Amino acid sequence: MLETFKRLLVGRPLPTTEQEHQRISKPVALAVFSSDAISSTAYATEEILFVTALGASSLALGLGTLVPIAIGVATLLTIVAFSYRQTIFAYPSGGGSYVVSRENLGEMPSLVAGASLLVDYILTVAVSISAGVAAIISIPVFADLAEHRVLLGLGLIVLITLANLRGIKESGALFTAPTYLYIVMISGLVLYGLYRDLIVGDIGRVPLPTDPEFAVTGGTLGLFLVLKGFSSGAVALTGVEAISNGVPAFRRPESRNAATTLVIMATILGSLFFGLSVLASHVDPYPSESKTVIAQMGLLIFGNGAIFFVLQIATALILTLAANTAYADFPRISSIIARDGYLPRQFANRGDRLVFSNGVLFLAAAAGGLVIAFGGVTNALIPLYAVGVFTSFTLSQSGMVRHHLTEREPGWRRSTVINAIGAVATFVVLIIVAVTKFSSGAWLPIVVIPAVILLFKGIHRHYSRIERSLHVEPGFRPRRMNHTVVVLVGRVHRGVLDALAYAKSLNPSHLVAVSVVTDDEEQQRIHDQWQDFDLDVPLETVYSPYRELSRPVLTFLDELGDRYDNDIVTVLIPEFVVKHWWQHILHNQSALILKGRLLFRKGLVVTSVPYHTD
Amino acid sequence: MLETFKRLLVGRPLPTTEQEHQRISKPVALAVFSSDAISSTAYATEEILFVTALGASSLALGLGTLVPIAIGVATLLTIVAFSYRQTIFAYPSGGGSYVVSRENLGEMPSLVAGASLLVDYILTVAVSISAGVAAIISIPVFADLAEHRVLLGLGLIVLITLANLRGIKESGALFTAPTYLYIVMISGLVLYGLYRDLIVGDIGRVPLPTDPEFAVTGGTLGLFLVLKGFSSGAVALTGVEAISNGVPAFRRPESRNAATTLVIMATILGSLFFGLSVLASHVDPYPSESKTVIAQMGLLIFGNGAIFFVLQIATALILTLAANTAYADFPRISSIIARDGYLPRQFANRGDRLVFSNGVLFLAAAAGGLVIAFGGVTNALIPLYAVGVFTSFTLSQSGMVRHHLTEREPGWRRSTVINAIGAVATFVVLIIVAVTKFSSGAWLPIVVIPAVILLFKGIHRHYSRIERSLHVEPGFRPRRMNHTVVVLVGRVHRGVLDALAYAKSLNPSHLVAVSVVTDDEEQQRIHDQWQDFDLDVPLETVYSPYRELSRPVLTFLDELGDRYDNDIVTVLIPEFVVKHWWQHILHNQSALILKGRLLFRKGLVVTSVPYHTD
Repeated sequence: MLETFKRLLVGRPLPTTEQEHQRISKPVALAVFSSDAISSTAYATEEILFVTALGASSLALGLGTLVPIAIGVATLLTIVAFSYRQTIFAYPSGGGSYVVSRENLGEMPSLVAGASLLVDYILTVAVSISAGVAAIISIPVFADLAEHRVLLGLGLIVLITLANLRGIKESGALFTAPTYLYIVMISGLVLYGLYRDLIVGDIGRVPLPTDPEFAVTGGTLGLFLVLKGFSSGAVALTGVEAISNGVPAFRRPESRNAATTLVIMATILGSLFFGLSVLASHVDPYPSESKTVIAQMGLLIFGNGAIFFVLQIATALILTLAANTAYADFPRISSIIARDGYLPRQFANRGDRLVFSNGVLFLAAAAGGLVIAFGGVTNALIPLYAVGVFTSFTLSQSGMVRHHLTEREPGWRRSTVINAIGAVATFVVLIIVAVTKFSSGAWLPIVVIPAVILLFKGIHRHYSRIERSLHVEPGFRPRRMNHTVVVLVGRVHRGVLDALAYAKSLNPSHLVAVSVVTDDEEQQRIHDQWQDFDLDVPLETVYSPYRELSRPVLTFLDELGDRYDNDIVTVLIPEFVVKHWWQHILHNQSALILKGRLLFRKGLVVTSVPYHTD
Repeated sequence: MLETFKRLLVGRPLPTTEQEHQRISKPVALAVFSSDAISSTAYATEEILFVTALGASSLALGLGTLVPIAIGVATLLTIVAFSYRQTIFAYPSGGGSYVVSRENLGEMPSLVAGASLLVDYILTVAVSISAGVAAIISIPVFADLAEHRVLLGLGLIVLITLANLRGIKESGALFTAPTYLYIVMISGLVLYGLYRDLIVGDIGRVPLPTDPEFAVTGGTLGLFLVLKGFSSGAVALTGVEAISNGVPAFRRPESRNAATTLVIMATILGSLFFGLSVLASHVDPYPSESKTVIAQMGLLIFGNGAIFFVLQIATALILTLAANTAYADFPRISSIIARDGYLPRQFANRGDRLVFSNGVLFLAAAAGGLVIAFGGVTNALIPLYAVGVFTSFTLSQSGMVRHHLTEREPGWRRSTVINAIGAVATFVVLIIVAVTKFSSGAWLPIVVIPAVILLFKGIHRHYSRIERSLHVEPGFRPRRMNHTVVVLVGRVHRGVLDALAYAKSLNPSHLVAVSVVTDDEEQQRIHDQWQDFDLDVPLETVYSPYRELSRPVLTFLDELGDRYDNDIVTVLIPEFVVKHWWQHILHNQSALILKGRLLFRKGLVVTSVPYHTD
């Protein structure tokens, strides 16, 4: 029944040979891998305003910095996009900054990159989903839903998780339309807005709320605040690396298709972000948790009608799709890290729909936890985010510089320059973000990422130790073992007789039955039964004054070890198997506890001999 | 470490031979077994007022019915006490209504009694604890705690549970003082209150609250309401049967000591209840959830000082002790029912402190759940309570009538009359309670008790079926078995070589290694390893297109069953044992799933061959 339910949710199992067919075309790839980057335009402008408008002495002064900051961010985007283009060609098998750092910079940088990426994908899901919910509750008719924002967020996460458990191609098809719809709607908003404002001149400004939830803290707009605003805007770059991680999912030729998609994506992203910032500097929206900046501008320009409604829904959908980017990449990266032995092996296995199901489920749980912990509010999460993004950017670009210097492939000089510029630029931004945003939450990843790295190292140490202890050279022969069999007996019944017969069929060197008794009466009873049934296996009884099973059996086995000089002891426990799992609770669980205790003794094998009661 | 923590909480284990010493003297027994009954005076008067004062056209009219109803309840108490006195002598081994019904009336009546008793003990804990908390928050300085009443209740339950896990004698000693303190305080309240009112005449009446939380619904005080008030007052009788259930815990001669204790208890209970009702009819308290009737009278008579404080604390303590009565009896009764095969066997085993620990823990969990579900408010729970109490009274007394008629022991005629009066009286009250309190919640036990009985029957059916299937006559000999051993192999490592050596030492008729592969490459690899190590066990590979383990292995075993005509197949799974439990999550759990699947196949034994990696 559980199986049927699973099939209904995720579909039929797929054989390994169908793996090749799960590849995607460029237009679909643009939707799957670029939605993260493009969707960040839905909150990047607002994030800048949260810093500059609240820090400056007036909203107007804050709005004045928007365009200069947007130019800075767009420049950075161009640099990063060109850098990653190199990566795609150098590493057609994907892996992004983790693989690039591992192959060029060594273990520790690769672990830093891996930890940053995993943490960031989790944050991507939480931030995108929270922002998507914010877009919905910014629609006036849905304002009442604001109090359920956490629940709405969790619902969306469940939907995306199910889509992804079905497999990447189907989820790609499911999500293609919204990306294009969003691009069209935002372009329309920017162009029509600027037309109405600059040519017709009939829309005025966004009205300030009567009860403003934000308070301007005053003060001049110094360099620190401008840089902090820039740090906030830099979140527009999150997700740019997604394509380079996902190269193998493209149709052949993978690298060429991925590179083209990257350039298209960067162009769209840059235009939309810059356009929105220019528009905002004209119509004066204000930062708010209850109504997004895009919603404010949409209401002013389109009015509260069908077009505005479509704009908001498209925004919510592309943000959902952005979360989906993380679902496409988190499981892939964690499977690579797991194959290298730094994460539990379960992350490396494909589920029966060819998806790395464990990675998908882990991502969903972690992101859901964050949405709950932060009450589903976007901008509380964003400072956590930028540190990891720019850490992995820097490592990835540095690794590429090293790669070019080592490989010296055709055109390596030009490539080295491009990646060096990328590395330096992203490193500078990393420092700016860490310093200006430290107190707003950037300290958290500075704690979490090292913790994740320690976890990676611990897991790796464990697997290496196991590997060493399992290693054996061809030609090794364990000694031939002889052994003693001990049958554990409560009272004589059908199951015990079967177990004794099984014990004899094992041809042990020594065979003994043992019964744990709590008083003389019980001891007499089992001895009587043994005689009644005329059993030819020697019976020993062990006295248990505290009515427990494990300790006396362990003591008995110690004595047995002294008595016979054997290589191995097998303990047989007759157990009945009941028809339904819940019937198990009707039987004493002491056998289970005993088995747990015996597991850790060396030279001992514990075997349940099942007796089927039906 | 877990073990050390347990010892710290519950004390050292006690051997079975110390059982005899865990008996209690009469004064301690009065505290342990009578606190339930005596403590019900803390809420019985209030319960009557909740019915009559709210149903009548005025508080005064409601108060007027108190004394007549109290006389009715006291009469009933006398009848029931005399009836149970007979039971104690007839059944010195204890068991109360369950044992009496089982031996005299048959299976079904005994199950009704058993279900009623178990449900009532759970309710006793929930009601007493809630009422104890109400006594505390009725102290003006503690009024702020009212919002934490659920948490306070749960804290008390945890404390009593720990005391009881240590064992009955210690918990008896712990709780003796409060019972006597309560008796002294309530006697003092009644006597000094009547003295001040009737002789000195200086205390006036309890002032009505300025913002009364109760609304008089008006109407004349008809027979129905008076009977309903009587039903409410009848909760004063709960717990009277406790002594008859607990006879074996008394010092020898058990019956004599128990009977004396019962008479003392009934006298104290009747006097206190009647006295409180008379006092209330003089000083006019009102029914309230935030200030108990006793607290209102105590404040009026003693003033808000030290004596009032002691009164309330004594009330809270005896109510906690009342809950303890259930802890003394629920585990005992459930162990008897479990020994009869109607409850899971775990309830029949004494823990290492000679206490039926599982019963104690189950009771704590169930009562805690009720306190949470009902928000810790006493009078919401009380209607659920009386139905079960009077059901088991009726069955117990009827059983005794049957007993006397069958046994015809000396003086049987007199005894028959006493128990017959008891049976009829309690049956009449049962009908009154069920009818008048039906809509206030008495319908719930009418649903729950049959459900519990169905559960009893289901469990009994299961155990009987198992017993039949295990039964075997002396002389039965199972056939000597020969068998095939299958070793499950992933890749060749130290653990696998050990498992193959173990397999050979079992001397099977047929020995085969099997490996599940997902593609040709993997198949080639394992065959190469097999050749490198020059292994002399035949290797077969099974192809798994969907990357799963269980199904291909099951299919292979099916084929194997057709290939060899064997009695039994042993599947050996090489498993490594890691040092710490959390390291297990780093290893694939598919072996565990496979073992679960194989458990239900007949003629199959699954053995993990452990390989210790440290």
